[in-house]
Amino acid sequence: MLFHVRMDVNIPRDLPQAEAGEIIAREKAYSQELQRSGKWRHIWRIAGEYANYSIFDVKDNEELHAILTGLPLFKFMTIKVTPLLRHPSSIRDDDT
Amino acid sequence: MLFHVRMDVNIPRDLPQAEAGEIIAREKAYSQELQRSGKWRHIWRIAGEYANYSIFDVKDNEELHAILTGLPLFKFMTIKVTPLLRHPSSIRDDDT
Amino acid sequence: MLFHVRMDVNIPRDLPQAEAGEIIAREKAYSQELQRSGKWRHIWRIAGEYANYSIFDVKDNEELHAILTGLPLFKFMTIKVTPLLRHPSSIRDDDT
Amino acid sequence: MLFHVRMDVNIPRDLPQAEAGEIIAREKAYSQELQRSGKWRHIWRIAGEYANYSIFDVKDNEELHAILTGLPLFKFMTIKVTPLLRHPSSIRDDDT
Amino acid sequence: MLFHVRMDVNIPRDLPQAEAGEIIAREKAYSQELQRSGKWRHIWRIAGEYANYSIFDVKDNEELHAILTGLPLFKFMTIKVTPLLRHPSSIRDDDT
Amino acid sequence: MLFHVRMDVNIPRDLPQAEAGEIIAREKAYSQELQRSGKWRHIWRIAGEYANYSIFDVKDNEELHAILTGLPLFKFMTIKVTPLLRHPSSIRDDDT
Amino acid sequence: MLFHVRMDVNIPRDLPQAEAGEIIAREKAYSQELQRSGKWRHIWRIAGEYANYSIFDVKDNEELHAILTGLPLFKFMTIKVTPLLRHPSSIRDDDT
Amino acid sequence: MLFHVRMDVNIPRDLPQAEAGEIIAREKAYSQELQRSGKWRHIWRIAGEYANYSIFDVKDNEELHAILTGLPLFKFMTIKVTPLLRHPSSIRDDDT
Amino acid sequence: MLFHVRMDVNIPRDLPQAEAGEIIAREKAYSQELQRSGKWRHIWRIAGEYANYSIFDVKDNEELHAILTGLPLFKFMTIKVTPLLRHPSSIRDDDT
Amino acid sequence: MLFHVRMDVNIPRDLPQAEAGEIIAREKAYSQELQRSGKWRHIWRIAGEYANYSIFDVKDNEELHAILTGLPLFKFMTIKVTPLLRHPSSIRDDDT
Repeated sequence: MLFHVRMDVNIPRDLPQAEAGEIIAREKAYSQELQRSGKWRHIWRIAGEYANYSIFDVKDNEELHAILTGLPLFKFMTIKVTPLLRHPSSIRDDDT
Repeated sequence: MLFHVRMDVNIPRDLPQAEAGEIIAREKAYSQELQRSGKWRHIWRIAGEYANYSIFDVKDNEELHAILTGLPLFKFMTIKVTPLLRHPSSIRDDDT
Repeated sequence: MLFHVRMDVNIPRDLPQAEAGEIIAREKAYSQELQRSGKWRHIWRIAGEYANYSIFDVKDNEELHAILTGLPLFKFMTIKVTPLLRHPSSIRDDDT
Repeated sequence: MLFHVRMDVNIPRDLPQAEAGEIIAREKAYSQELQRSGKWRHIWRIAGEYANYSIFDVKDNEELHAILTGLPLFKFMTIKVTPLLRHPSSIRDDDT
Repeated sequence: MLFHVRMDVNIPRDLPQAEAGEIIAREKAYSQELQRSGKWRHIWRIAGEYANYSIFDVKDNEELHAILTGLPLFKFMTIKVTPLLRHPSSIRDDDT
Repeated sequence: MLFHVRMDVNIPRDLPQAEAGEIIAREKAYSQELQRSGKWRHIWRIAGEYANYSIFDVKDNEELHAILTGLPLFKFMTIKVTPLLRHPSSIRDDDT
Repeated sequence: MLFHVRMDVNIPRDLPQAEAGEIIAREKAYSQELQRSGKWRHIWRIAGEYANYSIFDVKDNEELHAILTGLPLFKFMTIKVTPLLRHPSSIRDDDT
Repeated sequence: MLFHVRMDVNIPRDLPQAEAGEIIAREKAYSQELQRSGKWRHIWRIAGEYANYSIFDVKDNEELHAILTGLPLFKFMTIKVTPLLRHPSSIRDDDT
Repeated sequence: MLFHVRMDVNIPRDLPQAEAGEIIAREKAYSQELQRSGKWRHIWRIAGEYANYSIFDVKDNEELHAILTGLPLFKFMTIKVTPLLRHPSSIRDDDT
Repeated sequence: MLFHVRMDVNIPRDLPQAEAGEIIAREKAYSQELQRSGKWRHIWRIAGEYANYSIFDVKDNEELHAILTGLPLFKFMTIKVTPLLRHPSSIRDDDT
């Protein structure tokens, strides 16, 4: 089941740089593991912003929520979820 | 080059049904031809709305604009474009 | 899987009254059949507005979309969907 | 009498973790006691957000306000109340 | 139980003047009857706008909704309801 | 002359509790004195929020501003003023 | 007593041109008479828009409302009123 | 050339009171000097808010910007500029 | 003097196509004449929208307003003006 | 390829003045180098605000993002990107 997610990241200025770096590294590893598993289907950077649009393919809302709240950067993010489905005009097998 | 596009469709109630049907059919053919060419990379329906999120992969802003204004439903749409780029955490070859 | 849906209804003034009445009657029957099936779990009127908050319990986003776009009043509605899940503090068996 | 409530939680980063944990534990106990009493009829997590939609069934506005301002997390919440009533299409006895 | 209500009126330009006048007259009678009964506690015009702020004192949400949807001008109004309660600093007996 | 005022209170978390308590006590005394004088005609708590709707009856804008900026909590408030007048449908002597 | 008023004008396209012209002429005469009387203290056009910012100096809210609702263009306007008062830094006698 | 400016002031709570007082005094002197020169044509307090509406009469955008960024309170203000011009209905010589 | 202008065009669906075409042709000629005169310094299409961002270089607000309200499409446009000035970092002679 | 960018700058009050000054100096040098290269085509100050509208001419979204996130002030900016293209009415060679 597909979901469109926008994530805006806002790391507080007083977070020690080492701590920020460590969180960002964990975030990347976490994201890539989920991409490899097929659950995090797409991730794109939004030009000029510290933000991304992502597409998730998960079993249900519970799994999506567990993934999002498990993000190392979760507490510094504003997240907006939109449920998607196959478009009747789509010709791609993997747009489902 | 990738763009995120949201399209909201609002067909006026007084458009003759035959005309509406013909436009929608042309829209579908137009979209599928662009999907086959690789320029319209993804299209997803937004649950509960007559709207879609799409990803376009085009040469430049000009080509994107030509495609969008060429949509048979263009005059009944509200369109919002966001430029995207490869996310540093992405592992997919085709997220570029 | 649970979804929170807000529906705002706006029936055009020039819709013949008989037609409006017939659509509203079909809407009610459609809603009650889905309530009996358990898919439309709750529906509440919002005080002072021609609008409702509803909770749907469906298999997936596709089913939700099919139900919502099948509403006889769909073309006169503005719809906003929010995916829900069991809250960790919930004690009700049927809040899942 | 029914009310729809949206609660968004925003715990300040500089709140000591032990204090935050203690408040969250009290919040859960408080919520569950009110659920058991029947006054907090439903609570659902919003996917991807530290927020919930809840339905309260209380005697009047005063009781609702007392419950909400008594929430251990109240001072870290943004709360929005909407009064509800039975929908004419509802078939559930407990949607009143 | 007290409610704060904002009503914005927008009478369509093509409504025959006689019909509009008749609806407005019924609206006034309806409002005054409810004021006499004590249920419509206050009504004030907002300067420069075809709108009012009103305070209702009703048994419950159901009664409020019945009153508001019974307004002769209801279909030409945008209505926003906010539940109120006695303020701890109030000294007036009738602010309850 | 009547004014509708919405006040939202937001006391900073780092204000010493004793200082906050003292300000709130002064706020209450200040409000009640103005209520007794007839200038602060009504005050209602908004359910679920640290906010109120109030009605002031003052000589002019200057007096209203002096009262509002004199509020002990003024610097922690967001205030929105709307000028009111007698509604043509009002039957209450004191809605003027 | 001073008020800041923004007026946005939107004349419907299907209003016969002669009728529109006649209303606009009456509007101008009405405005100039009020300017001569000193009640409509200032009127400025907003660059690029069919809108104005005006300053009124009236006895009270009632008089302001009577003036605004008496505007020949009132039914085609969106109006927003803000109460003003003398600024403590003002040195002009007529900014009161 | 005329400009409409809204200024909202928000002095941070941790600014030492003496420093705040000194800035406010300089602000007043600065404003009055510009009023005397005729460049700051009007300034009015907005009732209930720490904000003002002002009218500036300057040579060009550059001069306006220099004046506004020179405000002692500039770094604590949110400023919104709207270009104005003489209204065709105006009868005042100095509304130009 | 420079101004940033956003124009959104919305041609009503019931405008006869010949009339629309004639207006659009006049709009183009009008724009190009102003571009040649140097007053309309830049015009860019916004990708995916029937809208443009433009830069005007005019003597004053009056001239800008005369140009904008003289646009053949003016009555079908929403226009938003922002006054600009030379940026202290600019190195271009013609960014003034 | 052209992009319209709005940048709003908000330097935190507790940033040491020397550090702020050094960042602003680097920002200026960075901007001027990009202007000289032709990639940062225009930059204008918005009157009354610490903000600018800029036009970039870059190879693609990637290059734009690299430039914007490389801004010394990036972490203190809110940035909004809009893709542009040649307007059909433009007569300037360099509006492409």
